[in-house]
Amino acid sequence: MKKNSAKYADLSHIMDPQSIAIVGASDNPEKIGHVIMQNHIDLGYPGKIYPVNINETGTIMGRKAYKSMLEIKESIDLAIIAVPAQAVPSVLADCGKAHVKGAVVVSGGFAEIGETKLQEELVNISKKYSIPVIGPNCLGVMDPRSKVNTLFLPSFKIDKPKIGGVSFAAQSGAVASSVFDMISSQGFGLARFFSYGNAAVVDESDILNYLMNDKDTKVIVLYIEGAKRGADFIEVARKVTKVKPVVVIKGGITDAGAAAAHSHTAALAGSHEAYDAIFRQFGFTIAHDISELLDFAKVLDKDSQVTGNRIAIITNGGGTGVLATDALYGNGLVSAKLSKESERQLKKTMPPIVNVRLPLDMAGDADEKRFSDALRTVEVDPNVDAIMAIALFQTPGADSKVANMLVNYAADGKKPLVVVSMGGSYTMKQTAIMGAGGVPVYDSPGVAAKALAAMINYSRYKKGVLNV
Amino acid sequence: MKKNSAKYADLSHIMDPQSIAIVGASDNPEKIGHVIMQNHIDLGYPGKIYPVNINETGTIMGRKAYKSMLEIKESIDLAIIAVPAQAVPSVLADCGKAHVKGAVVVSGGFAEIGETKLQEELVNISKKYSIPVIGPNCLGVMDPRSKVNTLFLPSFKIDKPKIGGVSFAAQSGAVASSVFDMISSQGFGLARFFSYGNAAVVDESDILNYLMNDKDTKVIVLYIEGAKRGADFIEVARKVTKVKPVVVIKGGITDAGAAAAHSHTAALAGSHEAYDAIFRQFGFTIAHDISELLDFAKVLDKDSQVTGNRIAIITNGGGTGVLATDALYGNGLVSAKLSKESERQLKKTMPPIVNVRLPLDMAGDADEKRFSDALRTVEVDPNVDAIMAIALFQTPGADSKVANMLVNYAADGKKPLVVVSMGGSYTMKQTAIMGAGGVPVYDSPGVAAKALAAMINYSRYKKGVLNV
Repeated sequence: MKKNSAKYADLSHIMDPQSIAIVGASDNPEKIGHVIMQNHIDLGYPGKIYPVNINETGTIMGRKAYKSMLEIKESIDLAIIAVPAQAVPSVLADCGKAHVKGAVVVSGGFAEIGETKLQEELVNISKKYSIPVIGPNCLGVMDPRSKVNTLFLPSFKIDKPKIGGVSFAAQSGAVASSVFDMISSQGFGLARFFSYGNAAVVDESDILNYLMNDKDTKVIVLYIEGAKRGADFIEVARKVTKVKPVVVIKGGITDAGAAAAHSHTAALAGSHEAYDAIFRQFGFTIAHDISELLDFAKVLDKDSQVTGNRIAIITNGGGTGVLATDALYGNGLVSAKLSKESERQLKKTMPPIVNVRLPLDMAGDADEKRFSDALRTVEVDPNVDAIMAIALFQTPGADSKVANMLVNYAADGKKPLVVVSMGGSYTMKQTAIMGAGGVPVYDSPGVAAKALAAMINYSRYKKGVLNV
Repeated sequence: MKKNSAKYADLSHIMDPQSIAIVGASDNPEKIGHVIMQNHIDLGYPGKIYPVNINETGTIMGRKAYKSMLEIKESIDLAIIAVPAQAVPSVLADCGKAHVKGAVVVSGGFAEIGETKLQEELVNISKKYSIPVIGPNCLGVMDPRSKVNTLFLPSFKIDKPKIGGVSFAAQSGAVASSVFDMISSQGFGLARFFSYGNAAVVDESDILNYLMNDKDTKVIVLYIEGAKRGADFIEVARKVTKVKPVVVIKGGITDAGAAAAHSHTAALAGSHEAYDAIFRQFGFTIAHDISELLDFAKVLDKDSQVTGNRIAIITNGGGTGVLATDALYGNGLVSAKLSKESERQLKKTMPPIVNVRLPLDMAGDADEKRFSDALRTVEVDPNVDAIMAIALFQTPGADSKVANMLVNYAADGKKPLVVVSMGGSYTMKQTAIMGAGGVPVYDSPGVAAKALAAMINYSRYKKGVLNV
């Protein structure tokens, strides 16, 4: 573990365990240990699950029950601990004696309510036995590939994520569960999920280091109130963005926010300016609102590598083209100028009333073919770096064929694409098709422009080009 | 009409007509005239409808057909004209001879494609007969009270609004139809809706003047690319915000955006700085993205009259309280300090682990009662001007009882309330309950804070208090 050996904790046995013990497992569905055990059964976790409960003999949820970790004769990778705070140290010590390779302590009742001694005890046991511990006071971890899932939330209240490339970490369980739910409902694919609570042992530096080296993680999304280990955090922060993008939102950037953060997780939020400087210097993508975390992640997920800022807007509504053009310039981007060849091509494929210049207003009757013709022309134009397509589904020509065509383009198109889709229930169905199909889709031109700028700025950082 | 008599056109016969003629009505469902006639039948328009089509004898959609306006012997308030552009002038002249009191020309094919002569002809006939004309080249008007509805969009693609206090006007049909759809799906109540296209006769100044005097309109929402009559626009702009709030988004605020606007509606976008100065001086609420139009409208709809900026944040998730606090200060607001009396009261009603300070983190198991107890305490605290409640519905305690309690509070609470609700499908159901129940609900703390600031700044303008 980090304090004794390597600087960053090894989280591989927590995120991809061959066997799990659930301490506090119970037949009582009101108990957190029951919910966590049910999670693993529901997901079809393929390894062995050992229910542990000091008060149980016989079986728990149909499986042989163990009174203590020490009763289990087989090797255990991960112990999930959901027992009252006072009992956690002795359970963790048993885990150490049983050579467990990692633990998640979901129980609350430690430093967050002033029980710092109890938390110190937990930390000391973790050090003694070299067990990396997530928590305490957290929702824990979720991994849709290994099917580990300690999130003890009512399952009908939270959407299920599909497998993908976005990893998310937050101390705050509230932020974490909301973002988890949004990731799932917006059709994102999830790689790893961490709600790490008090960060008594494993902290943001460990997690960032783990995610940097994780081949399934394409984009890292982070909510932090403060870094526990400044120097180690800076070291990994410097390295990680050379490998993959990190979207970050910092809580406590104002004095009052920092005071709230201190009261919340006892985090010392640190100087906003210092964090801001670190994030900017190391090419982090800074979000200023929770919604921006995913707005940025979904376009960074594409690894576009585009460093130019000339955007081709194509739209089936003129007014939105005007607003989108304004939004480009407000975000350091420009409206591309079509090549003569593109103009010639568009004159062939667009109806005569369409003015073949950017933003391209394809008129209110634009259908799948017209959208496709426009896309296929601008994607090969050397004057165009990326594309913003605005599809207004209230119009007669725009329907799920347009949505599916945009999904296909996003998979094999030559230039990065973002889509704007805004409206009511019919439109939301098309948005869902596109979101699930991997299209970065937004509900306003302003947010789409902001996301494009974030994408381009990260590519520039990675390639050493000066940012706009 | 304005050029001959009053400065601003009288739109009352267009928005609340006792009888309607639909020129271009047809049994063919592909025809715009058919769609518009069906709209009125579907809504149950209570007045008389006269279908007019030069090629029809007998009946159209089961009603007696007229070959021309001049054949109708009864008095007609509103003529809706959906015939080819070249035929519009003679139809409008017939309307004049028939003493029609207003017209909507949905047909395109005028100045927007360079047919300026044809548009001039339309303007001259309108002047000659003093008929206020909306359009040409527009979706027209919708009024859920009078049940006028010229919007010829596929009805399954667009949600239906309920009756309420928000009026919207845009030249752009694309912006108009998207916003119409969003207004409906977000549970807003609509007062009047205008998509006024080329603004050949009736323009933004006329519409603003009409909405200022319209008793059913509580908030005006405006998308403009440029005002046709500068001095008249300034005159009405100066007056309107003394009466009711106006949320505006200006298209063409950058040079490239202005060029796009010129190409779009031949609008001379004018200097951004000049418009910005007018809007600021006269207390308009400026939106910077389409989504902000409704974000601001839904809180301005409440007419809170609150000029103080001390906000009480109550939340069932600590991390979101931190981010919301940051967002307050980023928008010129502050986190309120509770009175001693409030602290005493909260110590009685909150569980011991809750720290009774703002932002108030009520813990993850907060239920309807705890939310209600907190609201009822802070609403009477003299140190609190307005409230932001963050309800994370992923948690065990938060459910539709919380959503319905917030609806009840919004109806009779003593302090203005905004709500933050963010997540997936279960959360969206709660958001829909609150939106339909008149709660200003947002999907991120940053947007909620921005909306509160807009509300307070408008109240300050109206009461002559210096803005933050």
